[in-house]
Amino acid sequence: MENNKKVLVAFSGGLDTSFCVKYLKEDKGYEVHTALVNTGGFPSSELDTVTEKALALGAVSHKNIDITQEFYEKAVRYMIFGNVLRGNTYPISVSSERVFQAIAIISYAKEIGATAVAHGSTGAGNDQVRFDMIFQTLAPEIEIITPIRDMALSRQEEIDYLKKHGAQASWEKSKYSINKGIWGTSVGGVETLHSHSTLPEEAYPSQVVEKEPRTVSIEFEKGEPVALNGEKMSPLSVITKLEEIASRYGVGRDMHVGDTIIGIKGRVGFEAAAAMVIIKAHHMLEKHTQTKWQAYWKEQVGNFYGMLMHEGQYLDPVMRDMEALLKSSQECVSGTVTVILRPYSFMVEGITSDHDLMNSGFGAYGEENKAFDGEDAKGFIKVLSLSNKIYYHVNQDKK
Amino acid sequence: MENNKKVLVAFSGGLDTSFCVKYLKEDKGYEVHTALVNTGGFPSSELDTVTEKALALGAVSHKNIDITQEFYEKAVRYMIFGNVLRGNTYPISVSSERVFQAIAIISYAKEIGATAVAHGSTGAGNDQVRFDMIFQTLAPEIEIITPIRDMALSRQEEIDYLKKHGAQASWEKSKYSINKGIWGTSVGGVETLHSHSTLPEEAYPSQVVEKEPRTVSIEFEKGEPVALNGEKMSPLSVITKLEEIASRYGVGRDMHVGDTIIGIKGRVGFEAAAAMVIIKAHHMLEKHTQTKWQAYWKEQVGNFYGMLMHEGQYLDPVMRDMEALLKSSQECVSGTVTVILRPYSFMVEGITSDHDLMNSGFGAYGEENKAFDGEDAKGFIKVLSLSNKIYYHVNQDKK
Amino acid sequence: MENNKKVLVAFSGGLDTSFCVKYLKEDKGYEVHTALVNTGGFPSSELDTVTEKALALGAVSHKNIDITQEFYEKAVRYMIFGNVLRGNTYPISVSSERVFQAIAIISYAKEIGATAVAHGSTGAGNDQVRFDMIFQTLAPEIEIITPIRDMALSRQEEIDYLKKHGAQASWEKSKYSINKGIWGTSVGGVETLHSHSTLPEEAYPSQVVEKEPRTVSIEFEKGEPVALNGEKMSPLSVITKLEEIASRYGVGRDMHVGDTIIGIKGRVGFEAAAAMVIIKAHHMLEKHTQTKWQAYWKEQVGNFYGMLMHEGQYLDPVMRDMEALLKSSQECVSGTVTVILRPYSFMVEGITSDHDLMNSGFGAYGEENKAFDGEDAKGFIKVLSLSNKIYYHVNQDKK
Amino acid sequence: MENNKKVLVAFSGGLDTSFCVKYLKEDKGYEVHTALVNTGGFPSSELDTVTEKALALGAVSHKNIDITQEFYEKAVRYMIFGNVLRGNTYPISVSSERVFQAIAIISYAKEIGATAVAHGSTGAGNDQVRFDMIFQTLAPEIEIITPIRDMALSRQEEIDYLKKHGAQASWEKSKYSINKGIWGTSVGGVETLHSHSTLPEEAYPSQVVEKEPRTVSIEFEKGEPVALNGEKMSPLSVITKLEEIASRYGVGRDMHVGDTIIGIKGRVGFEAAAAMVIIKAHHMLEKHTQTKWQAYWKEQVGNFYGMLMHEGQYLDPVMRDMEALLKSSQECVSGTVTVILRPYSFMVEGITSDHDLMNSGFGAYGEENKAFDGEDAKGFIKVLSLSNKIYYHVNQDKK
Repeated sequence: MENNKKVLVAFSGGLDTSFCVKYLKEDKGYEVHTALVNTGGFPSSELDTVTEKALALGAVSHKNIDITQEFYEKAVRYMIFGNVLRGNTYPISVSSERVFQAIAIISYAKEIGATAVAHGSTGAGNDQVRFDMIFQTLAPEIEIITPIRDMALSRQEEIDYLKKHGAQASWEKSKYSINKGIWGTSVGGVETLHSHSTLPEEAYPSQVVEKEPRTVSIEFEKGEPVALNGEKMSPLSVITKLEEIASRYGVGRDMHVGDTIIGIKGRVGFEAAAAMVIIKAHHMLEKHTQTKWQAYWKEQVGNFYGMLMHEGQYLDPVMRDMEALLKSSQECVSGTVTVILRPYSFMVEGITSDHDLMNSGFGAYGEENKAFDGEDAKGFIKVLSLSNKIYYHVNQDKK
Repeated sequence: MENNKKVLVAFSGGLDTSFCVKYLKEDKGYEVHTALVNTGGFPSSELDTVTEKALALGAVSHKNIDITQEFYEKAVRYMIFGNVLRGNTYPISVSSERVFQAIAIISYAKEIGATAVAHGSTGAGNDQVRFDMIFQTLAPEIEIITPIRDMALSRQEEIDYLKKHGAQASWEKSKYSINKGIWGTSVGGVETLHSHSTLPEEAYPSQVVEKEPRTVSIEFEKGEPVALNGEKMSPLSVITKLEEIASRYGVGRDMHVGDTIIGIKGRVGFEAAAAMVIIKAHHMLEKHTQTKWQAYWKEQVGNFYGMLMHEGQYLDPVMRDMEALLKSSQECVSGTVTVILRPYSFMVEGITSDHDLMNSGFGAYGEENKAFDGEDAKGFIKVLSLSNKIYYHVNQDKK
Repeated sequence: MENNKKVLVAFSGGLDTSFCVKYLKEDKGYEVHTALVNTGGFPSSELDTVTEKALALGAVSHKNIDITQEFYEKAVRYMIFGNVLRGNTYPISVSSERVFQAIAIISYAKEIGATAVAHGSTGAGNDQVRFDMIFQTLAPEIEIITPIRDMALSRQEEIDYLKKHGAQASWEKSKYSINKGIWGTSVGGVETLHSHSTLPEEAYPSQVVEKEPRTVSIEFEKGEPVALNGEKMSPLSVITKLEEIASRYGVGRDMHVGDTIIGIKGRVGFEAAAAMVIIKAHHMLEKHTQTKWQAYWKEQVGNFYGMLMHEGQYLDPVMRDMEALLKSSQECVSGTVTVILRPYSFMVEGITSDHDLMNSGFGAYGEENKAFDGEDAKGFIKVLSLSNKIYYHVNQDKK
Repeated sequence: MENNKKVLVAFSGGLDTSFCVKYLKEDKGYEVHTALVNTGGFPSSELDTVTEKALALGAVSHKNIDITQEFYEKAVRYMIFGNVLRGNTYPISVSSERVFQAIAIISYAKEIGATAVAHGSTGAGNDQVRFDMIFQTLAPEIEIITPIRDMALSRQEEIDYLKKHGAQASWEKSKYSINKGIWGTSVGGVETLHSHSTLPEEAYPSQVVEKEPRTVSIEFEKGEPVALNGEKMSPLSVITKLEEIASRYGVGRDMHVGDTIIGIKGRVGFEAAAAMVIIKAHHMLEKHTQTKWQAYWKEQVGNFYGMLMHEGQYLDPVMRDMEALLKSSQECVSGTVTVILRPYSFMVEGITSDHDLMNSGFGAYGEENKAFDGEDAKGFIKVLSLSNKIYYHVNQDKK
């Protein structure tokens, strides 16, 4: 007799998802399959370990799904176009990955004919919202199981259960919870649970080892990073290599405080050297190549895009509409940007671009003018002043 | 016979405005009065020199008008409320000052019964727009005279004219043009005239002399800085003293590229240590004390407020409407923020506030939850997902 | 022994809330108090009937609370300032009333020391959200009871229960569900449950009885209606009397389709003659008295204000911030507007205002110009064109 | 000897452009060519007359250029997508046409090798800005000549000059200035020069001749009108045929007051039956087929698109970015809308669409719910309330 209760567990190798595997198999009688979705944070050695763990826990099969390229194309790219920094600070590293992990999981669940899908989120965070929303929207017919949220077990209870069922791994809780992906690493715990202090040096995965300033150059083509220090490479390679270089300076670290989807304030530390350097470099290139209203509308749309992405609303069709605007805005955002790295900080030095709207032969700001003369300027100002002039003429008491 | 041609020259002591004084007196037969409007950039010693210069050039009277306090109350304050950084970078230091200088000049011109007002702007920059607009709007009956813009003389021609009429000062042109005010110092010249390189260390008025990190604390009350390192003082004093401390770290320096009022791209370097530290500290306090939509609308309005301020549209009544929103949003933005200063960079460490919406007893994000349970969360997500669920149910091909 | 289970039921006299009263008293042993909050939709005769019904059902006390004036001051006023029409169509009549009814109910519940509050909303609509949210926010200590939502009874089951307990009223279901308040009447049922047809004439409370066009004039002072046809009166009186006049023309009727708080599309018919005429008249007065950017920002903020109001988020402090902007924007919105009423339609004829920015002596559009000449215009256009000129010069392939 | 002074005059057949032709030929010695750009407002009989007039005045050649189709594809289409109504009122009929007329003129000027281009605008209106801006941007090398603006002649002086040079036409000034195009007809004069009264019936080109209500149906495909009353046809034909039907009801008439590009308020009457009916029908279809945030962003972008279009900024690349968003948003805006026409008014009755998000099987608003139950709703509201609950818990004095 075939077991028609087949569940796919989104598996990370950690305590919570390990409990889910064991529990769904032992107590609930499921045929358990597991999958891990990699968005650039897992080296292959770690992936092998995860596979072993899953099988050891009793999973019938485990699959490591690498979606880093897809994640770049469908999310990171647009977040670069939009210079997306939540609260002007946070490059939406982890939250955007969750969405794509959820999509990959539910798609794989359909592929293997699972009747249920499980994740290890608690009931107190954003991730449950992202996972459930994507799952329900793309496969309303598949049941969602969340043992951790439902049973609200303590770590010790989970460990005891696992031990009782023969899973003998050591489940020490690390001081900080680290989530790593291609677009940054988040760091939570201790200081981030309160408002008044910041993470200590050692909480960050990368340490400041470089002392001497160093200049790097990033080339963009229609808004996408295509070369580092003059060497052409894929956008993913630019991100990876730049992260290696810049993280040694400790740049791109900060604390983010913001509104979670569930209505409370959340605080998190992060390290995202490549993301921060690329976004700031890209933004500077845009300042040289876009018109005033392009910049204005891109910012509007980019901020909202980031908010909806953060809140797991990636599937709302408005996201496609915004992507269309963001993509169109990158038509002339091509050129090279140089950035100087220093310990804890970096600064954009300048740009070169065939689309640079500065120094276009029409004169330099404040210096000389080939496009109009003083009389033109006077006429311009006279007309430009007219609406206010009328307003104060009519409303003398407002002067 | 009384001379009824009385002109007020906005006088800085530099070559252009010196030429204006001499020229309007000698060639145009005006009774020339001069005034300098200080927004915090001129020490009193310098002001005395300017007075002497004006009188030596033939001005009948000279007045130094200090509007720093008014400038804070009517502009800086709202730029703090709005976290105003043009292009996410520039604290709108000089451009906002020009507006208030113009208002002070035209008001003094009316007071002394001047029939004309003169300024030294060229026809190639933003300042002419700001001056002319304010003058025309507030006193359409007063003639505006702009010899530099009208005659388009070279520096040498101006110097020769001055010499010919007995003004023997040395008029060496400095390599960089520096504009200093309470809210920052702009630096233009050489590198800022092109796109590809940044200003050298020595171009900045302040040099990096501190090596060791240092923590400062800023207390805000309804959005305004009211204490530094625990010592209560006026907002202007917080700005001034913080500038002294933080400028020694070289923080708050950057390059701004943006759209000028006259349609070309302009690039400028700046140093605004106090402004940057205050804005970032203030923003962090807001993240803890405002709701999501408060933050959203404040940002919308603050950005536009900055744009109009930059473009000299301070008198548009929409600015009053925006100020009303910004002020209202600060109702709970009270508390203390600590900031760590490092060479070239700083980082907000944390905040304490009676209005902190984090750690309010409703549970900590991701950790525990006292406000709802797992079933509530499931219901929340189910309803939250509904619109997308319907969308993809109806539009299956979009899945 | 005192019964310490005291519940306040938000009572309308209808079947659902009648069931609540009886059920909470009989089955749950509560001391039941009832209250009806009037926002202008109940004539006093109807209120007396409601009181009788409540007491007959076993309520210990019933109170009719009239908040029409407060509702005007805290909501209608700002919706006029913001020309708030949801989806450009619907004056947010009922949804905004619910919020203030909830506030009045919870406030009265505290006053009488109720430990619980009950409402008759089902689990399928917006009202449950508005009531629960306000209640929880303002009095988290008071329990919320919703028998209709919890028990999901049919109408017949409710009627049977009431009969069983001696409540013998006739509970016929009317074809359309009508909700009337000072700011409009909503009509739901039959046609509104589907997308393709509109309500028949007879579904609207008012019928078209006037055939001849008629002109009315409305005077506004700082955005508020203060006189009708030349007669000074309170804003509430303007609304009431204008409704009497204009509803006889069948104006202000339309169908609204929009996103409910719970994620599905909702459709409703409405009749809001006074609201529509006042908003359109007010908007026209604004067009004459506000600057371009005032109009722009008011519209932005007004639309969002309406959205949050509709969604029951009135207590979010961002609403206070928006109200500050909206109020500030009305500074010069004073004058008189004439409107012509015709069967099914109306049109604003014109305005007179001391603050009219048209015909201010600076010349008439397209006719003559006293503020600038042709050369000024040329200079204006030359400078205004510059950014695009540069863009196409640099990007020749975009031409 | 070849005359190398070749000018293209944008010619309408009216007094001003007739003067330009004669004046540039006689007084300035130009080889004059003329062109009229038709955006749907000129019947072919009228075009023949214009050709005759041009040649009779001495033009070497005249060309009638029909760009109606291009105007639809590049502007009207997006204004439908964006439901663009300036000030919530005016479908931007004439102003958008001017932009495309300017583009066609400058393109033809290049084609025939003209060294100059002339238009008949005065210095007091918007059209000069639109023409000059487009001309300068697309062909900075071609001189712009504007005799009417430069010489500021009276009508009589122009007539006298024409008579003197043998042009004997009758140049009576009509009471109202009428501009007709595919997207509407504007009417200016007498009443529109002041604020207080509206145009009389007879000022409108179409008179109300239908008394009985009539229903029409419009089918849209991805936002474009593709069928009328069940008959498939081109969008232009839908517009033209619908205008014939609906203009007989006098619908789509109104007065628009707004900010001109030159800073003063302008008022104009218009009749745009097809435009208004199509926009309102399209908007209703969107309400059924788009998500909440799609509607929100479309409105934001559509309004700004309309503002820039009105101000002649069509060539700003931000317009392309906005068009990309608007186009993307129409992906599911397909279906049929029925509209009832009445004298002076119309109302959308309903829609049918395969993409209708209402009645999708998930339950009907307020009636029943298949997607969640009462407990889910309570959980939803509990979480949704949390941020406000925390706010008022922390800030008790704000309650």
